[in-house]
Amino acid sequence: MFESAQLDRKISRLEFDQREPDLRERLLDAQARLQTARFSVVVVVAGAEGAGKGETVNRLMSWLDARGVQAHALGEPSEEERERPEFYRFWRRLPARGRIGVFFGSWYTQPVLQHSLGHLNDAELEDGLRRILDFERMLEAEGVLLVKLWLHVSKKQQKKKFKKLEKNPETAWRVTRQDWRYHKTYDDFIGSAGRALRRTDTGLSPWHIIESANSRYRDLTAAETLLSAIEARLEQPVEEAPEVAPLPVPLPVNVISSLQLNQELSEEEYHQELPHRQMLVGKLARKLHRRQRPAVLVFEGADAAGKGGAIRRLTEALDARHYEVVPIAAPTDEERARPYLWRFWRRLPRWGQITIFDRSWYGRVLVERLEGFCGPADWQRAFAEINSFEEQLAESGCVICKFWLSISPEEQLRRFQEREQLGFKRYKITAEDWRNRDKWAAYQAAACDMVERTSSDLAPWTLVEAENKYYARLKVLDTVEKALKKALS
Amino acid sequence: MFESAQLDRKISRLEFDQREPDLRERLLDAQARLQTARFSVVVVVAGAEGAGKGETVNRLMSWLDARGVQAHALGEPSEEERERPEFYRFWRRLPARGRIGVFFGSWYTQPVLQHSLGHLNDAELEDGLRRILDFERMLEAEGVLLVKLWLHVSKKQQKKKFKKLEKNPETAWRVTRQDWRYHKTYDDFIGSAGRALRRTDTGLSPWHIIESANSRYRDLTAAETLLSAIEARLEQPVEEAPEVAPLPVPLPVNVISSLQLNQELSEEEYHQELPHRQMLVGKLARKLHRRQRPAVLVFEGADAAGKGGAIRRLTEALDARHYEVVPIAAPTDEERARPYLWRFWRRLPRWGQITIFDRSWYGRVLVERLEGFCGPADWQRAFAEINSFEEQLAESGCVICKFWLSISPEEQLRRFQEREQLGFKRYKITAEDWRNRDKWAAYQAAACDMVERTSSDLAPWTLVEAENKYYARLKVLDTVEKALKKALS
Repeated sequence: MFESAQLDRKISRLEFDQREPDLRERLLDAQARLQTARFSVVVVVAGAEGAGKGETVNRLMSWLDARGVQAHALGEPSEEERERPEFYRFWRRLPARGRIGVFFGSWYTQPVLQHSLGHLNDAELEDGLRRILDFERMLEAEGVLLVKLWLHVSKKQQKKKFKKLEKNPETAWRVTRQDWRYHKTYDDFIGSAGRALRRTDTGLSPWHIIESANSRYRDLTAAETLLSAIEARLEQPVEEAPEVAPLPVPLPVNVISSLQLNQELSEEEYHQELPHRQMLVGKLARKLHRRQRPAVLVFEGADAAGKGGAIRRLTEALDARHYEVVPIAAPTDEERARPYLWRFWRRLPRWGQITIFDRSWYGRVLVERLEGFCGPADWQRAFAEINSFEEQLAESGCVICKFWLSISPEEQLRRFQEREQLGFKRYKITAEDWRNRDKWAAYQAAACDMVERTSSDLAPWTLVEAENKYYARLKVLDTVEKALKKALS
Repeated sequence: MFESAQLDRKISRLEFDQREPDLRERLLDAQARLQTARFSVVVVVAGAEGAGKGETVNRLMSWLDARGVQAHALGEPSEEERERPEFYRFWRRLPARGRIGVFFGSWYTQPVLQHSLGHLNDAELEDGLRRILDFERMLEAEGVLLVKLWLHVSKKQQKKKFKKLEKNPETAWRVTRQDWRYHKTYDDFIGSAGRALRRTDTGLSPWHIIESANSRYRDLTAAETLLSAIEARLEQPVEEAPEVAPLPVPLPVNVISSLQLNQELSEEEYHQELPHRQMLVGKLARKLHRRQRPAVLVFEGADAAGKGGAIRRLTEALDARHYEVVPIAAPTDEERARPYLWRFWRRLPRWGQITIFDRSWYGRVLVERLEGFCGPADWQRAFAEINSFEEQLAESGCVICKFWLSISPEEQLRRFQEREQLGFKRYKITAEDWRNRDKWAAYQAAACDMVERTSSDLAPWTLVEAENKYYARLKVLDTVEKALKKALS
C-alpha cells in the first residue's frame, strides 16, 4: 500500500516558492465557487505520528479562505459526545453545503490504533471498517465530496523526526513518551493502517497516499490533491431533479393489510387499565434514568392515526425531566444543508433521557419517496443507512421502539370530519391532508416495504391496530414496558 | 412577598375534575395559535424544595401538546457548558418562535441558593440579580413572553411533605439528606428568595407566587397563569415594521475621523517584521491553550478594509487545532427564530480555543441600525446588551479583542476597482457593496457611537488605521500579542 510513498520525493524551496502563489490563487478561486455549489467538502488527514498532519493542516488553512473552512482536531470526546453513539462527534461537525471541514483525528483513528495495539482483533477491525464504509458511502450519496489523505513516513523517518523535534527546545514538548511507544509499534500500526486503507479505498473516495518526509512536497501535494478534487466536482454537471419513481402498488395481502384494525376494548376497560400501565412504564423509565441508559421511541402512521394521543398517554407516565418530544416537520435551512440524517443525530438523547420522535427519519422512505422529494436511488439506499444508524444507536446502549399506527382510510375520513366539526384551530384539516388520502394505497405499500426492511431485534417495529384508540394506546404502553423491562433485566 | 401565599387555599377533587377539561382545551388552543405567532414562551418554575416543581411541570406537560413544548431540568452543567459563561446553558435552550420552554432549575437557582447558604454576600447576590434583570429585559425586548412562577410552601408544609414522601416506600427515594439540610435553612432560603423576587418583579415579567400546599390548587393556578399570559399576548396587535431612525450625522471631529489613516510602513519592513510578530503571537496562543483559557477576536470595518487579510496573518500564527473563523452573514432560520445574540452564544469557544468573528454582534448597531432591519429601540438597547454579553465572556476568563479597521472612502473605491480588474469570482463587487458607499458618513457615525459605548477595559476596541494594509496587519498582531500577554501574566 505504501510502496510508492517511499521514493524519497522532494521539492526544493525554490520550486515551492514558485508554485505556491498560483496554487493559492486556484484554491481561493475554487473555494469561492464552492460557496454557491450544492455540495460540501470533508477532508480526512490521517497518518502515523511524525508525518506532520498538524503542519499540513496548518499550511492548508493558511492557503484557504478561513471563512469557508473549519479544522476539527478530535482528541478525547467530550462528556456530551461520550453519551451518544461513537459517530455522533463526526456527525455534529459535518460542514454545511459550500463549506470545507478538515478532520484530523477522524473515524479512522481509533480502529487503526486499537487494532495495531492488539485491543481489537481482525474481525472487530473489519466490523469497524464496515461501519466506516457505510458512513462514507452515505456521505458521498448525499453529495459530500470526501477527500482522504494519508501522510506516510517510514519508521526511520519517524525516528528522525522525533529526534529532530526533541533537539530543539522550542519543539521538544511536542514529542511525548506516548509517541516513542507508538514508534516501537510502528510496524503493527502500518500493518493495521494498510488493511484499513485497502478496505476503504473506493472508487468515489480513494485514499491519496502522500510521501511526507519532505514537508514542502507533502504540503503542496496535499493541497493539489484537494484542489483537483474540488475543481473536478465543480465541473460536474449539476444533477437534474431526481426522476420520480412510480407509486408502489401494495400486495393484496401484506403485513399491514392483514392487521385486524378494530380491536376490542371498551372505554371503561381502558380507563381501568390505563393508570396501572402508566405506573409500570413510569417505574421502568425511572430505572432507565438511574441506570443512565437512553431510549428512542419512534411514532409513524397516517394523519389522524392517533400518534399524538398515544404519545400523550406515554408522556403522562414519564417525568418531564427525562423526556423530549421531537416533532418532525419540514427541515430548517441548517438541516437542509447537510445529509438528511443530520437532523436526527443532533437530537439524540443523552444517557438517562428518552427522546420521542413524532414522525422521524422514516419520512425518507414514506413521504419523501412518494412525493418525489428524493429520487429512487435515495430512498432505496435509505433502508441500509437507517439500519446502520439504528444499529449504532442500539450498540451505544439505547433502547429503541418503533410504532406504526394503522387505521383504515374510512376511519381517517371519519376522524377528519369529526375534527372539522370541532372547529378548533389545532385540528384544522389542510388541503394537503386531503391530498394525501389519494395516495393511501401507495403509502400503505411504502410502509410495508419499510417495516420489512428495517425491523430488527435491536430496533423492532410494532404494528399497532389503531382504529380503537383505547386499544392502540394501551398497546403502545405495553410494548414500551416490555422493551424497557427486557433492556433493564 | 409570600404573605398572600399562606392562605391555605384548596381546590377539591370535584372542582378540579370539573375545571380541568376546559382548561386543557384552552391551553391546546392557545398553543395552536402560538405556533404561527412571532414570539416564544419561556416559563420559569421556581420555589423551595417540596413545593412540587417537578409535579407541577409534569402536570403542565401532560396538559400541553408535547410537540410544542420542552421541559429543561437543569442539574449540573455539562463539561461543554462549564467551559462557557454561566448563561450559556440557558441561551442554548431558548425555544424558537412558536414554542414553549419550561425551565426548572433556572438562572435563579444558584444565586438564591448560594446566598441563602452564605456563599454569596448581599452585594454578590445583587450583582447576580442585575445580570438576571439584564437577561430578562433582553428576552422581553426580543419578543419572548416570560412567565415566572414561584411555588410557595411554608416551613411546616415542607416538613410535612418530606415526611409524607418518606413514609411511602414508592417515593421515599425522592427525599435526600440534602433536602433535610435545606429544610434547616428554610428561613434563610426564603429570605434570599424574597429579595431576589422583589428585585426581579418587573412590569413586563412579574412573579406569580402560587400557594403550593394543595397540589390541585397549585397546578390549576400555574396552568391558568400561563394560559392567561399566552392569551393576552396573542391578543396584542402585531407590531408594525419598526420605524427607521434618521441616519446619524457624524461629528466633524470624532474618534474615527481623527485617525491618521495612512501610516508609514514599507512592504520591506513588513516582511521583515511579520514572521517575528507571528512567532510571538503563536507562542502566546499555545500558552493560552495550555492554560485552557478561551479568546474571542472581533473584526469589524467597511468592505475591503482588509479584515480578511488581517485575519489570515493572524491565523497563520495559530495552530489549526485551536482556532475557528466564524464569518457572519445573514442568519439562518433557526437563528432568526431566537433573540439576535443567540447565534453568537452558540459559537463561543471552549477552553483553550480562539474564535475569530469576521463581523459580529456589532452588526446590530451598524448595518441593522442603518438599513432599518431593526427599530431604533432595538439598536439603542443593543449597546447595553452587548456590554453585558462581553462582561460575561470576560468574567468566564475569555480574552477579548475588538478591531475596527478604518479606511477612507477613496481608498475603498481604489480597492473595489482593483478587485474588479482582477476578475476573480471571489472578489466580485456586488451592487450592495456600491450602495453601502452612499451611506459612508452614516456608517462612520454609527461606528463612532459603537466604539464609545462598548469599549471597556475587559473588551476594548482597537481602532486600526488600515489604509496601509501592512501597518494594519502588524497592529492587529501587536494588539493580540499584548492582550494575550496581559491575560496570561
